[in-house]
Amino acid sequence: MSDEVARLRETVAALHAELVRYNLVAWTAGNVSARVPGRDLMVIKPSGVSYDDLRPGNMVVCDLDGVVVEGDLAPSSDTAAHAYVYRAMPDVGGVVHTHSGYATAWAACGESIPCHLTAQADEFGGEIPIGPFALIGGDDIGKGIVATLTGHRSPAVLMRNHGVFTIGRTARDAVKAAVMCEDVARTAHLARTLGDPVPIAPEDIDSLYARYQNVYGQTTIPSARR
Amino acid sequence: MSDEVARLRETVAALHAELVRYNLVAWTAGNVSARVPGRDLMVIKPSGVSYDDLRPGNMVVCDLDGVVVEGDLAPSSDTAAHAYVYRAMPDVGGVVHTHSGYATAWAACGESIPCHLTAQADEFGGEIPIGPFALIGGDDIGKGIVATLTGHRSPAVLMRNHGVFTIGRTARDAVKAAVMCEDVARTAHLARTLGDPVPIAPEDIDSLYARYQNVYGQTTIPSARR
Amino acid sequence: MSDEVARLRETVAALHAELVRYNLVAWTAGNVSARVPGRDLMVIKPSGVSYDDLRPGNMVVCDLDGVVVEGDLAPSSDTAAHAYVYRAMPDVGGVVHTHSGYATAWAACGESIPCHLTAQADEFGGEIPIGPFALIGGDDIGKGIVATLTGHRSPAVLMRNHGVFTIGRTARDAVKAAVMCEDVARTAHLARTLGDPVPIAPEDIDSLYARYQNVYGQTTIPSARR
Amino acid sequence: MSDEVARLRETVAALHAELVRYNLVAWTAGNVSARVPGRDLMVIKPSGVSYDDLRPGNMVVCDLDGVVVEGDLAPSSDTAAHAYVYRAMPDVGGVVHTHSGYATAWAACGESIPCHLTAQADEFGGEIPIGPFALIGGDDIGKGIVATLTGHRSPAVLMRNHGVFTIGRTARDAVKAAVMCEDVARTAHLARTLGDPVPIAPEDIDSLYARYQNVYGQTTIPSARR
Repeated sequence: MSDEVARLRETVAALHAELVRYNLVAWTAGNVSARVPGRDLMVIKPSGVSYDDLRPGNMVVCDLDGVVVEGDLAPSSDTAAHAYVYRAMPDVGGVVHTHSGYATAWAACGESIPCHLTAQADEFGGEIPIGPFALIGGDDIGKGIVATLTGHRSPAVLMRNHGVFTIGRTARDAVKAAVMCEDVARTAHLARTLGDPVPIAPEDIDSLYARYQNVYGQTTIPSARR
Repeated sequence: MSDEVARLRETVAALHAELVRYNLVAWTAGNVSARVPGRDLMVIKPSGVSYDDLRPGNMVVCDLDGVVVEGDLAPSSDTAAHAYVYRAMPDVGGVVHTHSGYATAWAACGESIPCHLTAQADEFGGEIPIGPFALIGGDDIGKGIVATLTGHRSPAVLMRNHGVFTIGRTARDAVKAAVMCEDVARTAHLARTLGDPVPIAPEDIDSLYARYQNVYGQTTIPSARR
Repeated sequence: MSDEVARLRETVAALHAELVRYNLVAWTAGNVSARVPGRDLMVIKPSGVSYDDLRPGNMVVCDLDGVVVEGDLAPSSDTAAHAYVYRAMPDVGGVVHTHSGYATAWAACGESIPCHLTAQADEFGGEIPIGPFALIGGDDIGKGIVATLTGHRSPAVLMRNHGVFTIGRTARDAVKAAVMCEDVARTAHLARTLGDPVPIAPEDIDSLYARYQNVYGQTTIPSARR
Repeated sequence: MSDEVARLRETVAALHAELVRYNLVAWTAGNVSARVPGRDLMVIKPSGVSYDDLRPGNMVVCDLDGVVVEGDLAPSSDTAAHAYVYRAMPDVGGVVHTHSGYATAWAACGESIPCHLTAQADEFGGEIPIGPFALIGGDDIGKGIVATLTGHRSPAVLMRNHGVFTIGRTARDAVKAAVMCEDVARTAHLARTLGDPVPIAPEDIDSLYARYQNVYGQTTIPSARR
């Protein structure tokens, strides 16, 4: 298939290592996908395969209904949710799903994560929202993600009793959101079990978010090895 | 001895690395065994040997009364419990024991882990049950495991004041259950110390469990390196 | 540029590995800088670059107003805060900023860390103080750091709702303070969620601090590889 | 010097890696020593040197008053406490000191760790006792350790507001006690913050302890690489 698909197979396989590095996943419970730009296709993790065994060659290419187009393995059992997001949100180029522990604890309690941290204001623009309970197997999870994130600043949603879905312009951005979501969820948990977290004023959250989205990082991406 | 035993020595020695990787064990406190299919034998860790020092050649082969059949070292001090499970539950091909911290905290409190997570419904079919207090040295631990898990969906039991035993069709399945048990126990702990975890409706638990047991993963196991 | 700058590029790049090793940072959220002795210059991490990708060659040299003097990349978004500290505190040779989880939880609650540990008395001379809330983008963060740490024994300040800044005679000293700050913050959190931490008498804190500052370690630094 | 000293230099240097592996130490805050059998000497870590930089050649040999006999570096600032223990407890061949987080949290609260775990009964024979507050610099810490552990089953003492000291027949045994102490302290903390830990009956603790001291492990130590 095309060079673009080959490149994304490599990217998606490699990005799963970040889920492992940041301790967001146990056994095989988490997955990354990327949209193939300009085509109704996505590249996603195969189902139930160990992170150690992921290679560009065993990634699965599906259409945006989740039907396998290329690959010998069954795609992630979360493929329908990824596909729904790509169909409904044309600007999304990457989706990540994890059951990272602290974020999932908030999800188990059915609570959004309130914004007590400047880093959360930067990345998420305020609270990280809770989404509905939804059963796997149809479009319910995808609908829940899209309904919660549409028009919301946050690239992460806590699906009730389930875990985290994040979106991004690219798969790497979605992975970053998954990493930062767990980091924020952990610090917020530690703050609540410690004492009384102090709110940040809404106007300060707005100001932090606006600045971070425009100023942080390199305007032109440096030549980095990943 | 047979090729099958040689293969299982390798598998059992290697699987202990997963206990280390997922931080389920300290020093030498955890062990994996596998039944030798079609024979009244099992392969198990030697007692008190560091995980770094486990090799196919120092695994111990015992009969299902725990008597050493092959090997220079004394078998795990938990051998009697493993053996009892294999005698009583003919479908079990692997047994794992750990004192993984979060799961053992639930065990220390004498509490089953209630089901607040879809991943727990998937893997354990509902709560992870608490078993009795039992002293080591006879069949009491084995009896407690079998009494608790017989007819239960969960492949994991929390033995009171002690730790976790898991079972599986294979040793690898039992290791997966041990990894997921700690992951679930951790998230459930984090949820309870955070707020009020929301229950999942019993019919939703049933539906998640039924689907996961039938749909997840690859129908034919992919050629993976482990 | 000078040998001194070349040496500090190497030191600053390498010290970021300690932030990773001690789990003080997620993604790119933390930075180290060093003052160039005897010159109005500092060496600092580039903004938004992964820790894996840091090299002596991509560190950024700025003047003490934060203006880039040497380097192809934009400097850390926290450069203004580092620069303010170097301008205001001439004995400071290194500055570190992290959002390490436990320390940031104390910061989110707007609380100083009380001194219940002899190690905290040793390193910080008592409580680790809370600083003000300050928005990024001008001198407010720098002013808050300097106002809190001037005349205080502690080389670490918890900036409210934000994270940790530490100072040191050298960049390595500031990194050590960041590592010990998180270690102390963690133990203090664990103690508070466990029971009633016992205070240390002020005169004992004074005695511990005086001894540690004078006696600990090697009088002449041993030839170590870092 | 003698072969015995050379061997112990190697052992002591290497055992520090276990403190790092089990996350018991931050920066340079923890140390291991071994008595030289049959001589009034001990081998101990140098003060303030990174774990990465420990080599057989930079270990320090002291007499049992803590005076350096061999070595270019100053010995650990805890040398006086180690030396006091060796003078007072002739059967002790190894001493370890850490500020491991969970155990030190119990120490900060001035509480012994009650016995809710069979693994704790096995290794410690019941509760892990709290010792007195003591300032560094004389014999007070050593006296507190010896007063608490003499006639006690536990090889670990929680020194109030400070950290853990463990003893063993060998340095390796003392390191094992330090690892297991933190593991037990963590699980006990998690159990208390979760619910109501169930006590183990004193006669069951006695029975577990008696069995473990006599039956566990290999009668003759297997040829292991460490």
